[in-house]
Amino acid sequence: MILHLNTLFNPQSVAIVGATQDTRRAGGQPLYSLTHQGYTGQVFAVNPRYTEIEGRACYASVDALPQRCDLAVIAVPAAEVPNTLEACGRRGISHAVILSAGFREIGERGAALEACLQTALESSGVRAVGPNCVGMMNLRSRVFAGFGAAFRKTDWRGGPVAMISQSGGFAYSIMTYCEEAGIGFDHMVSTGNESSLNTLDFIEYFLEDEQTQLIAVYMEGIHDGRRLRALGRRALETGKPIAVWKVGNTRAGSRAAVSHTANLTEDYDYYRDAFREGGFLQIREIYDLIDAARVFRSRKRPRGNHVAIVTTSGGAGVLLADACEHANLILPEMTAPTLAALKPLLPDFASTANPIDVTAAIAQKEPEFSAATQAVLDDPNVDMLILRSYPGRDAPLWAHNFAAAASASDKPILISLTGTLRESSAWLPTLEAAGVPCFEAPSRVVYAAAALHEFARKCERTARHVEASRVIAKQALPLDMPGGFDELQGKACLEAYGIATPKRMFVAAGEEGTLQACGLKFPVVLKVVSPDLPHKTDAGGVRIGITSKDELGQALVKMKQSVVAYRPDARIRGWLIEEMAQGVELIVGALNNPSFGPLVVVGMGGVYAELFKDVARRYAPFGVTAAHELVLSLKGAQILQGYRGKPACDIDALADAVSRVSWLIADHINRLREIEINPLIASDKGVIAVDAVISSG
Amino acid sequence: MILHLNTLFNPQSVAIVGATQDTRRAGGQPLYSLTHQGYTGQVFAVNPRYTEIEGRACYASVDALPQRCDLAVIAVPAAEVPNTLEACGRRGISHAVILSAGFREIGERGAALEACLQTALESSGVRAVGPNCVGMMNLRSRVFAGFGAAFRKTDWRGGPVAMISQSGGFAYSIMTYCEEAGIGFDHMVSTGNESSLNTLDFIEYFLEDEQTQLIAVYMEGIHDGRRLRALGRRALETGKPIAVWKVGNTRAGSRAAVSHTANLTEDYDYYRDAFREGGFLQIREIYDLIDAARVFRSRKRPRGNHVAIVTTSGGAGVLLADACEHANLILPEMTAPTLAALKPLLPDFASTANPIDVTAAIAQKEPEFSAATQAVLDDPNVDMLILRSYPGRDAPLWAHNFAAAASASDKPILISLTGTLRESSAWLPTLEAAGVPCFEAPSRVVYAAAALHEFARKCERTARHVEASRVIAKQALPLDMPGGFDELQGKACLEAYGIATPKRMFVAAGEEGTLQACGLKFPVVLKVVSPDLPHKTDAGGVRIGITSKDELGQALVKMKQSVVAYRPDARIRGWLIEEMAQGVELIVGALNNPSFGPLVVVGMGGVYAELFKDVARRYAPFGVTAAHELVLSLKGAQILQGYRGKPACDIDALADAVSRVSWLIADHINRLREIEINPLIASDKGVIAVDAVISSG
Repeated sequence: MILHLNTLFNPQSVAIVGATQDTRRAGGQPLYSLTHQGYTGQVFAVNPRYTEIEGRACYASVDALPQRCDLAVIAVPAAEVPNTLEACGRRGISHAVILSAGFREIGERGAALEACLQTALESSGVRAVGPNCVGMMNLRSRVFAGFGAAFRKTDWRGGPVAMISQSGGFAYSIMTYCEEAGIGFDHMVSTGNESSLNTLDFIEYFLEDEQTQLIAVYMEGIHDGRRLRALGRRALETGKPIAVWKVGNTRAGSRAAVSHTANLTEDYDYYRDAFREGGFLQIREIYDLIDAARVFRSRKRPRGNHVAIVTTSGGAGVLLADACEHANLILPEMTAPTLAALKPLLPDFASTANPIDVTAAIAQKEPEFSAATQAVLDDPNVDMLILRSYPGRDAPLWAHNFAAAASASDKPILISLTGTLRESSAWLPTLEAAGVPCFEAPSRVVYAAAALHEFARKCERTARHVEASRVIAKQALPLDMPGGFDELQGKACLEAYGIATPKRMFVAAGEEGTLQACGLKFPVVLKVVSPDLPHKTDAGGVRIGITSKDELGQALVKMKQSVVAYRPDARIRGWLIEEMAQGVELIVGALNNPSFGPLVVVGMGGVYAELFKDVARRYAPFGVTAAHELVLSLKGAQILQGYRGKPACDIDALADAVSRVSWLIADHINRLREIEINPLIASDKGVIAVDAVISSG
Repeated sequence: MILHLNTLFNPQSVAIVGATQDTRRAGGQPLYSLTHQGYTGQVFAVNPRYTEIEGRACYASVDALPQRCDLAVIAVPAAEVPNTLEACGRRGISHAVILSAGFREIGERGAALEACLQTALESSGVRAVGPNCVGMMNLRSRVFAGFGAAFRKTDWRGGPVAMISQSGGFAYSIMTYCEEAGIGFDHMVSTGNESSLNTLDFIEYFLEDEQTQLIAVYMEGIHDGRRLRALGRRALETGKPIAVWKVGNTRAGSRAAVSHTANLTEDYDYYRDAFREGGFLQIREIYDLIDAARVFRSRKRPRGNHVAIVTTSGGAGVLLADACEHANLILPEMTAPTLAALKPLLPDFASTANPIDVTAAIAQKEPEFSAATQAVLDDPNVDMLILRSYPGRDAPLWAHNFAAAASASDKPILISLTGTLRESSAWLPTLEAAGVPCFEAPSRVVYAAAALHEFARKCERTARHVEASRVIAKQALPLDMPGGFDELQGKACLEAYGIATPKRMFVAAGEEGTLQACGLKFPVVLKVVSPDLPHKTDAGGVRIGITSKDELGQALVKMKQSVVAYRPDARIRGWLIEEMAQGVELIVGALNNPSFGPLVVVGMGGVYAELFKDVARRYAPFGVTAAHELVLSLKGAQILQGYRGKPACDIDALADAVSRVSWLIADHINRLREIEINPLIASDKGVIAVDAVISSG
C-alpha cells in the first residue's frame, strides 16, 4: 500500500526546481550530486533565471519541462512552493522533496504559508518529503536529493540500515558515527515538517523492503499512535527491528522540540508503552544503534536468556557477569559432560564456573581455545555465547577456527573485544563474515545480547499469536448518559462485563422506610447517590463501618441533614448501602487516548504506591495471561502474593477483572473516556470493585 | 607517608629474577623491555641456569648480585618466591614486583604458599606488587616492569591519568580504548593478590603526585573501607578525582570475582555510599572514564548547575535538553541583555529559548557564530556552556575565535561534536589547547558536565568544611550490658544523646499496686520488660490503645497471665506504660561496619516503603545539615512535607534526631553494633523514638 514510495526512492528522472550552479545553496547541491555521484537517471534543471547551468539546459518553469519526471526536488523560496507543487501536479510529477524552509517552524507567518502548502498538496496530489528538511538519499540507485553535510559526503559505505529522521542535522551526525563503526545506511530520509509524507509512512515502506535489516528512527513526535503500534506489530512479524531514538521526553526537551519542528509530543509514557509491546528497540545513545545494527545483522535468535561467558581475563568476566545480571540474563552452570570436556583442555587454575575463565595461557593455544569454546557452545543449558577475545599473537588462527564453529551452530555468538576494532582488524572480518558480531566497550556485548533476546521473545510471542480471549458484555451499557455515570450506573457497567462489585441495596429517595429489609452483612457503608454531589465525602455523604441496623437508620437521618445543609438544592436520587470488603487496595484505571488508543493502568493503592508511581500500563484489550504479567510487574506485587505472612490474594481473579476492564474500554472507544476503579480490593476470596467512576465523552 | 613508592616507580636499578631470553615468558619480557625501551637505570639478570643472556651477565642468585638494587622483578615459580624475597631483604632490595602466580587464586594449595609468602614479606621488609599480577609501568622513566600485551606495546602516548587495576588483562583493555580516544596514562599498576601493597596504597600515592590529574581504578574489592573513605576526602581536598570502575556488585559478578583474585567484596552499598561522599566518579562503561579524563583536564569548575546549550541543529538541542533534565542540570532562560545581543546576530527563525538554536545558517558565518556564543557565555545565569559544533567549512576559523573566548572565561565550556573525532581533527587541537574538551556521542557531553558539576559541588562543600556539630552525651551510657539492652536501657541511651522518647512510667515487678498514680495522657501502650522475651508481641506482652486507668489495670492482669503462660520461667523486670504518639512512621537505623565504619540508615515506615527500599544511607557522624539532606533524599519525603493536605512534620527536629543517632553510633564504634529505632514517629510537634533496639558487640 505504500509501494508508491518506490517512485520516490528510485526515480527514473528528477527535476531540480530552483537549480543553481552554487553548490553551497540548497538548489545547487542536489544538481551537482545527481549529475556527479553516479545517478543514472535523467536530471532536469528548472530556474527562470538561467537558460543553461554548466552546459546543461535549464528550463524556466516546471511547465516548460520537456517531459514528465518522477521526482521534483524543490528549493525555491517558501512562498513559491505551493505554486510549484501545483505545476508538478499538472505535469504528472507524483513525488517531491521540498527543501525550502520558512513554514510552521518560524511561527504564525509560516503557519499561514503552510496552510497554502497543504491545499496545494491536496489539489496537486503530489506526495512530498518535507518541507524544512535536508532531503532524501538512496545509495543503491545513487539518488542524492538533498543538501548539507550528509549530501556532500560521496563515499558513504552503504548497508542494510535505513535512517528516518525528524532532524536533518542529527541524521548526519548519527550516520557518520555509524560509518566509522562499520555500520552503513542505504537510505536516509529527513522528514522535516511532515506536511505530506511522515515518519510512519517511511517506517512502513522500509519494513517491507527486503534488503533493509534495521530501521533507525530519530523521533520527536508522531500524530498517529495507533499506526505506530500497528507498525510495531508488523516489525515483529517481519522480524525486523525498528530502532527508535525518541527525544523530547522531558519538559526541557519537549519545549526544545516544539521550537524546532513543532512536532506534537504526547506524554512519553504512551510511546514507551507502544515501544515495549511492539518490535522497537529504544536507543538512548549512538552506541545502542551501532550495536543493534551489529547484532541484528545475523538472523540467529536465542531460544532463551541463558548465557555462557567464556573469558580470557578474570576481570572482564566479573564485569560481564555484573552486566548480565543487570540485564536479566542468566548465567547457568555447565552440565557434567561439558565440564568433563573442558578439564583436559584447560590449566588447573582455570575456572569452569560461569563465567568460564579459560585464562590467558590457553587463549594463546590453538586448537585448545577453540575446542573449549565449542564445548561450552554445545552445552544444552546455553542459549547464547559471549566470548571475551584475547589480543594474542594467534588470534587470526583462532578466529579462523572459531568462525567455522560459529557457522555450524544455530546459537548466537557475540564477541567482546579486548582491544579496539582497529587493533583487531586483521581477523575481525573473518568472524563478521561468519555472522559473529564483535563489540568494543566491554559491557556493550551484554546490551546487544539482551536486546537480541528481548526482540526474539517478542517475535516468538507474536508468532504464537495468543489471542486476547474476548469478553462479551452480559447486557448493554447505559451509554446515553450525558456527562458521565453516577456510582450505581458505573457499577452496572462493570457488572455487565462480569466484574464483581459489593453486595448492595439502593433505597430511593422517599422510600427510606424500606430500610428495615436490609439483607446485607454488617459492617456496611452508606453513601448518598446524587448527580449534584461529585464530592460525596465533603458533603458528609459517606459513612463507613456501620455495624448494625439501628446504627444504619441513625446514620441515614444524619446524612440526609448533612447533605441538605451542604447543598440545599442537590437532587438526591437515593441511598446506597454496601457490604464492606477487606483486602489489599489497588487502583485500576482505563482510558481512551485519542492518538494511541485504549489503555489500562493498574497500580497499588495507598499513599506510598502513589508517591512511588508503582503503576503498570498496557494497551487494551488483552487476555488474562497478559493481565497476569501486568499485575505481577508491579513492585507491590509481593504484597498481593502474601507479604509478611498474610494470605496471598486470588491473582487469577485479579487478572480476570483487569482483562475485563480492558475489554470494557476497548469496546467503547468512542463512548467512554475514562474508567477509574478506586479501590479495587483483592483478597484470597477474590476481587471487588468498591468504587468506580466512569466518564463518557 | 607513602613516599617510599617513589622507589618502586622510579628505581635506579632493577634485578630481574627468573630472567630468560624468551620474551614470551614472564621473566623474558621485562628483561627485553627494560633494556630496549628507553629505561636509563641499571638492569641485572638473575637466573642460575644462565651465566649470560644476550651478552649481559646473568647472576646465579639475588645474593650473587654485584650491588644493591632498588627493585626486583620476580618471575620464578611460586614455590621459590618466599626464598627470593628473603634474599632481596638480605641484599637491601626494598621493593619487588611479583609476577609469579599460583597462590591463593588457585585454591587451598596456593593459599598455603601465600601464607609462606606473607611470612617472607614481613621478615624481609620488602614491599611488593602482586603476586598474580602483570606488573607495573611508569612511562615517565620508561619502567616496563611486567609482561603481557600492555608491556609489549612500546608506543603508549602517556598522559596525566594513573591506572590501578585488580585485573591485569582488563587494565590493558581500558588503556587501549583510552589511547585511541586520545587519553594517555603515565602509570599503570596491576595489583594482583595484593599480599603486600594494595589498591589503596597506590591511590594514596597518585593523589599526591602532582602530574597525575585523574586516577582510574578497576576494583573488585578492598579490605579497609575507612581508608577508602579517607582517600575520598583527600581527593576532594586535592581536587583530583578518583574514577573507580567497581565490579563484582551482583551475585553473579561477585561469584566470578571470588574465583578470579579472591578479593573480598563487601555489600556494594557500602562502596556506593563511600563513593558518593568522597571525591570518586563511578565509572560504568569505558566512555565514562574517557570523558572524565577529558573534562577534568581543565581546572575550570562550574559555580552551579545552570547550563546553556548552544546548538546548530534543532534535533541535537532536543536531545541535549532531555539529557540535561535527566542529569539534574538546569537550562535557565537568557537575561534581557543577552537576548538583545543575540537578536542582530541570528536569523529570524533561530530560537533564543535555551537550548539556543542559532541554526545551521549562522554556524557557517564568522564572526556571528562566535559572537553569539560569547553573548550566551557571558550571561550571568549561565554556569557552564555546552556547544553543539557544526561540521562546516569554516570550522577552523570558528575554532580559532572560540578558543580565544574560552581562554578568557572562567566558565567551563564543553563541545558536543556533530562529527567524529577523526573528522574534526583539523581544528580540534586548537580547542583542546584552550582547555575546551570535545565529546563524540551526543549525550556524553552531558555526562561530563554533570560529573564536573557534582565533583565541584563536593569539593566546594569540603572547602567550606561544615564540621558536624558535635553532640555530647548528657550522661554515660549503660555500656556494660552483655548481649544488648532491654527497651528501657535502649531508650536511656537515646535520651543521653538528646533524642526524645515517649513519656513513660515503669512499674517494677511486684509493685503493680503503684499503678494508680499513672500521670500519663491516654491513650497509652503497655509492654512487658523482660530480658527473656525479645519477641514481646508473640508473648502477648504488648497492648496498644489503652484509653483509661481501669482498662490499664485489666490489661496488666491479662498480660501477666499471658506472658507467664507463654514462658513460665521468663524473668519479668516490670511493666512499661507509655503515651502513644501520632504521626508519620520512620525507621532510623545505625550500625558499625567493621570495614567502612559507622553508618546511619533512614527509611520511611510501612510495608510499601520496605518493599520499595526507600532508604537513605550516610556514614556517621554528621550534623543537621547533612541529616536534612539525607531525610529529604527519601522518595517518601513528600509525606513528611505535608502530603494530601496533612500538616508538615517538623523536619528540623527529625534532622536533629538523625544527627544525634549518628553521633551515638560514631562515639561507640567498639561498643555498639547496631541501633534500630522502629518506629520513630514524626509530626508537626516533633519526633519521638517509640521503640528502640540497641545491641552491643
